[in-house]
Amino acid sequence: MPEFNAPLRDMRFVLHEVFQGPAQWARLPALAATVDGETADAILEEAAKITGQLIAPLNRSGDEQGVGFEAGQVTTPEGFKDAWRTYREGGWVGLAGNPEHGGMGMPKMLAVQFEEMLYAANCSFSLYSALSAGCCLAIDAHASDSLRALYLPRLYSGEWAGTMCLTEPHAGTDLGIIRSKAEPLVDGSYAISGTKIFITGGDQDLTENIIHLVLARLPDAPAGPKGISLFLVPKRVVNDDGSLGVDNAVSCGSVEHKMGIKASATCVMNFDGAVGYLVGEPNRGLAAMFTMMNYERLSIGIQGIGCAEASYQSAAAYARDRLQSRAATGAQAKDRIADPIIVHADVRRMLLTMRALTEGGRAFATYVGQQLDIAKYAEDAGEREAAQRLVALLTPVAKAFFTDTGLESCVLGQQVFGGHGYIREWGQEQLVRDVRIAQIYEGTNGIQALDLLGRKVVADGGQSLALLASEIRTFCESEPPYAARLLEALERLESTTQWLREQAGVDANAVGAASVEYLHLFGYVAYAYMWSRMAAVAKARHADEPEFYEAKLATAAFYFARLLPRTLSLQAGIQAGSASLYQLDAEHF
Amino acid sequence: MPEFNAPLRDMRFVLHEVFQGPAQWARLPALAATVDGETADAILEEAAKITGQLIAPLNRSGDEQGVGFEAGQVTTPEGFKDAWRTYREGGWVGLAGNPEHGGMGMPKMLAVQFEEMLYAANCSFSLYSALSAGCCLAIDAHASDSLRALYLPRLYSGEWAGTMCLTEPHAGTDLGIIRSKAEPLVDGSYAISGTKIFITGGDQDLTENIIHLVLARLPDAPAGPKGISLFLVPKRVVNDDGSLGVDNAVSCGSVEHKMGIKASATCVMNFDGAVGYLVGEPNRGLAAMFTMMNYERLSIGIQGIGCAEASYQSAAAYARDRLQSRAATGAQAKDRIADPIIVHADVRRMLLTMRALTEGGRAFATYVGQQLDIAKYAEDAGEREAAQRLVALLTPVAKAFFTDTGLESCVLGQQVFGGHGYIREWGQEQLVRDVRIAQIYEGTNGIQALDLLGRKVVADGGQSLALLASEIRTFCESEPPYAARLLEALERLESTTQWLREQAGVDANAVGAASVEYLHLFGYVAYAYMWSRMAAVAKARHADEPEFYEAKLATAAFYFARLLPRTLSLQAGIQAGSASLYQLDAEHF
Repeated sequence: MPEFNAPLRDMRFVLHEVFQGPAQWARLPALAATVDGETADAILEEAAKITGQLIAPLNRSGDEQGVGFEAGQVTTPEGFKDAWRTYREGGWVGLAGNPEHGGMGMPKMLAVQFEEMLYAANCSFSLYSALSAGCCLAIDAHASDSLRALYLPRLYSGEWAGTMCLTEPHAGTDLGIIRSKAEPLVDGSYAISGTKIFITGGDQDLTENIIHLVLARLPDAPAGPKGISLFLVPKRVVNDDGSLGVDNAVSCGSVEHKMGIKASATCVMNFDGAVGYLVGEPNRGLAAMFTMMNYERLSIGIQGIGCAEASYQSAAAYARDRLQSRAATGAQAKDRIADPIIVHADVRRMLLTMRALTEGGRAFATYVGQQLDIAKYAEDAGEREAAQRLVALLTPVAKAFFTDTGLESCVLGQQVFGGHGYIREWGQEQLVRDVRIAQIYEGTNGIQALDLLGRKVVADGGQSLALLASEIRTFCESEPPYAARLLEALERLESTTQWLREQAGVDANAVGAASVEYLHLFGYVAYAYMWSRMAAVAKARHADEPEFYEAKLATAAFYFARLLPRTLSLQAGIQAGSASLYQLDAEHF
Repeated sequence: MPEFNAPLRDMRFVLHEVFQGPAQWARLPALAATVDGETADAILEEAAKITGQLIAPLNRSGDEQGVGFEAGQVTTPEGFKDAWRTYREGGWVGLAGNPEHGGMGMPKMLAVQFEEMLYAANCSFSLYSALSAGCCLAIDAHASDSLRALYLPRLYSGEWAGTMCLTEPHAGTDLGIIRSKAEPLVDGSYAISGTKIFITGGDQDLTENIIHLVLARLPDAPAGPKGISLFLVPKRVVNDDGSLGVDNAVSCGSVEHKMGIKASATCVMNFDGAVGYLVGEPNRGLAAMFTMMNYERLSIGIQGIGCAEASYQSAAAYARDRLQSRAATGAQAKDRIADPIIVHADVRRMLLTMRALTEGGRAFATYVGQQLDIAKYAEDAGEREAAQRLVALLTPVAKAFFTDTGLESCVLGQQVFGGHGYIREWGQEQLVRDVRIAQIYEGTNGIQALDLLGRKVVADGGQSLALLASEIRTFCESEPPYAARLLEALERLESTTQWLREQAGVDANAVGAASVEYLHLFGYVAYAYMWSRMAAVAKARHADEPEFYEAKLATAAFYFARLLPRTLSLQAGIQAGSASLYQLDAEHF
C-alpha cells in the first residue's frame, strides 16, 4: 500500500519563497488580521496529518468497495463517515470561506495547496468537500442575506454538503438547452422539477442535509442560456430557525458505475416539484453558477496535480528500490543482483517528466491562487481588475493543462512499475482511473480550450495575455535562469496568438481547430515562467540548503531541455490551420 | 452496448490495393498453393462474423464478471467456453500455423488483420489464442520432431492452449536473473521448479490441457542470460500416444486483480518438480523464447490498433448522433435542438487523430506482416535476409508505437463521449483500461525503444534503417502525394539517427536518454510512409469509388498537416541530450 506524505517543503518553497505569500497577506487588510506565514505553515502541517493519516488510508478500500445504493439511499464506503466527522470538525470545508458566516477566511493560495494534498490522498473523498466549498462560494456571492445566513454556516462546518446540478441527459456542454423547470409558489419560493445527471455527491450519508444548486427555467423564460435561473434546493427543507423540516421532493434515482472515483457518488437526481429558492437574479443563473464553476475548475485542475504527486511519490520510491538490469555506464550496486532501476535513463526521464510537470503545476496553481486573493482583497480597484483578468485567462489553462499533464504523469508513474503498475495492489492503476475524470468534468478540456482561445484571448483582443506577457518581460529584466528560453517561448506563444487572431477574423473554425493545442502551448509557456521563477529563487538561496535547491535547479534544467521543446510541434500543428479538419463529410467518419 | 464491425473494406484496401498481397503470394511457392485473394477475402469475412457476432458480445460481460479462482482452478466468464469451442473449431488458432502439423499456413499479412479484429472485439478472449499461436511458433522453430508432432496439432486445433512463463517476482525486464531450476531426470526429461508471475492464461477452463513454455536454469548453467534454457511443461502429462496422463506438478497459486483485461487470467504459477522437456539447445533458451516474444510483440502491438478501432467506431457513431451546441459557422441541423457534435472542429480533431493513427497502424502492421512472409517464404536468400532485417527493425516500433498511440486514441475516443465516456455503460472506459496493458507487457515500451535504438539502429550501424530509407526514396521517385514531406521527415529521422550514433560513441547514456522519443520519431516517419502509399493508391483509383478514396485522402491530409509535425519536438527533445537526466542524484528523487 503506498503512503502519501504531503510535500510540505516544496509547498513552503512555492508559498513563501517563490511567491512570498506572507508579505502579500500583510499588505491586504482583510488577510493581514487572519493569517501570517507561521499560521499558514501550521495549517499545512495539520493538513498533512489529516490527509496522510486519516484520508489517504481510505483511498484503496474506498475504490474496492465503492458506494452502495439501496432504497434510494447512497452509502459511502467504510470509514468515510468517521473521517468526514473529523475532517469537518477541523473546519477544512470552510478553510477559505467567508468568516462572516463561519468560514476561516484563509487565502486561496494556501487553500490550493491544501486541496492538492486532499486530492493526492483520496480523490473521491475530496469531491464531497470540493463541491461544498464551491457551492458556498456561489451562495455567498449571489444569494440573499437570509439564505446566506441560513445555509452558509452549516455548509462551512460540513454539517451539510453542497452539490452542483447542471447536466441533464440531453444537455451537458450545451447548458442552454436544459429543460428543468421552476414554478413560482405563493410564498416566494419555487417548485423545481426535472432530472439532473452526473451529480457528484447528489446523495450520501456523510451529512444530515444536502444543498443542491440547480439550474432551471422560469415560466416564460427566454430560450437558450439567457433563460436559465439558479435555485437552492435542500434535500430536507430548512425551517427559518435552522432546524430541519420535512423531506423535500428530491430523490436519487441511481448511481453511475464508473471507471474510477468509485467512492464518490455520481447520482441521477430527480426533482419532483421540490421547494427551491432563487439565487441571484432571474434568468441570470448561468452567470451565478459560473462563480461556482470557476472555483471548481481550478479545484479540479488541482486534482490533476494531486494525483500526479501521489503517483510520483510511489514511482520514485519503487524506482529506488526495484533492482533490474545494470546501468549503461556499468554496475552501480555491485553487491546486489542488479541495479535499482533509477539508474536507467528512461526511468529518470519518466520520473523527471512527472516532477517537472507536477512542481510546475503546483507553482502555477499557487500563482493563480495568489491572483484570486488579489482580485478579492486588494484595496486598489485597478489591481483587483488586473488580477481578475489574469484569473479569467489562467483558469481554463489550469483546469485543462493540470489534468492533461496529470494523466500523462499518472500513466508514466504506472509505467515505472512495469507489470506491477497494472495490478491493483500498488495503487498506481487507481490513480490513472481516478485522474482521468478530471479531463472530462467541470467542462471538458476541449471546452476549457475554447474558453481560453475564443473568449479569453481572441474576443478579449489579447489584452489579458498582454498583461501576463508584460509581467514575464518585467521578471526577465532581472536576468533569471533560462530568461532567454522563456522569452523565446513567450514570443512563440505571442506570434501564434497573433496568427490565430487574424485567422479567427476570416475562418469561423480557426478557434476550434487550434484550441486544444493552443492551450497546451500556453501551458508549457506558463510552466516555463514558473520554472524560471523557481530556478531564480533556488539559485539565490542555494547555499542555505544545497540539496533541496539543487533538485529544483536540476528539474528546471530538465524542463527547459526536454519538455519546453513540445511547443515547437504545437505551434506547427496550430498553424496548419483548420482545412484538414473539414475535408471529410460527417457521414464518412 | 457498442457494436463492433470489422473494417473489411479498409482491410481489403490495405491488403489488396496498397500492398498487393495476392500478387506476392502468387510468387511465393509455399503460399501460392494455399491462398489467393478470394480465399483471403472469404477468411476475413468469416473472421468478421465470428469476432462481431460471437466474441465481441462477451467483451463487456467478461469485464464485469472477470475470471473466477477457487481451489486452484480458474474459471473464465460466462460464455467464454462455448465461444472458444466455436472459435477453435473454425481453426483460427492455427490460422498462420505450420500445415505439416495441422496449421492453416495462411500468410502473416492476413493473420495480422484477423488479429486486429480479434483484439477489437475482446482483448481478454484474444489473449488465450494469441499466446497459443506464439507458443506454437517457438515449438515449431526449436523443439524436437517428436515434441512438434505430439504437441502442435492439439495446440493449432485449440484443444490445448499455450503460455509463456518468463517473469519471476524479482525478474521482469531482467530475465538474466531468473531462478527457476531444471534438474535432469533419467529418462531425458527435466524436473522444473520455480515460481512464475503474470502468466497470461496460466490456468483456464477452456482447454483440456495447457502447455507452458518455461525459462529455467540447468544445474551449473552460467550466470546471466547465457545460462537460461527453455522447457515445455504440460499441465497434464501427455503420453506418447497423445492421450492425457497424470496431472503434472504445476499449479496456479493465485490470479491478479488488474486494471483491465479482467476476463484474461493473469496467474501466479508454481512449478514443483514438474516434468518438462528441453526445447532447443541447453542455455540457448532466451534465443528460442524470442521466436515467441517477437511474434507476441507484433501481436500485442496489434492490440493497440484493435482497441483504437473499436473506440473509434463507437466515438464516431456517438459524434454523429449526440446533439450539443451549434457549429461555429452557424446552425447545421436547424430543425433540431442542437447540431451533432461532429460539426465541432475539436471533435473532428479527436476523431481524425484516431483515424489517422489507426489506419496508419493497420497499414504498418500489414506491411510488417508482409515482410514476415517474405522472410519466411521467399526463395531468394538475400530477399529473405533483407526482409528479416526490416522485421527486426520494425517489430519494436510496431509493438510500442501501436500501443502508445492506441492509448492516445482510446483516451480521445472516451473524451468524445464527455461524461458518458467515464461510465461503464458505453464501453469506452473499458477500452482505455484494456489497451493500457499493451504498453507494459511483452517488454515495456521503454524496452522496445532500447531494442530499437540500441540494437537495431546503433549496434547495427544503421544498416537496417538504410534499407528502409532506400525503399522510401525509391517509392518517392514515383512522385506520390506528400513525397516532399515524407522525404523531409525521413531526413529528420536520418539526421537525428546520425547525431545519436555519434553521441552513443561518447556517452553511454545517450541511447537510454533518447530511446522512447526516437521510437516515436521513427513511428511518425513510418506512418508518413504508409499514408503516402495509401494516398497514392487513393488518388489513382479515385474515380472507382470516390467516397471511399476521398476519405483516405482527407485522412492523409490531416496526418501530414496535424500529426507529422510532432516530429519537430521529438527531434529537439532528443538532441537536448542526456545531461539533464543525470543532474539529480538518485536519493533526491
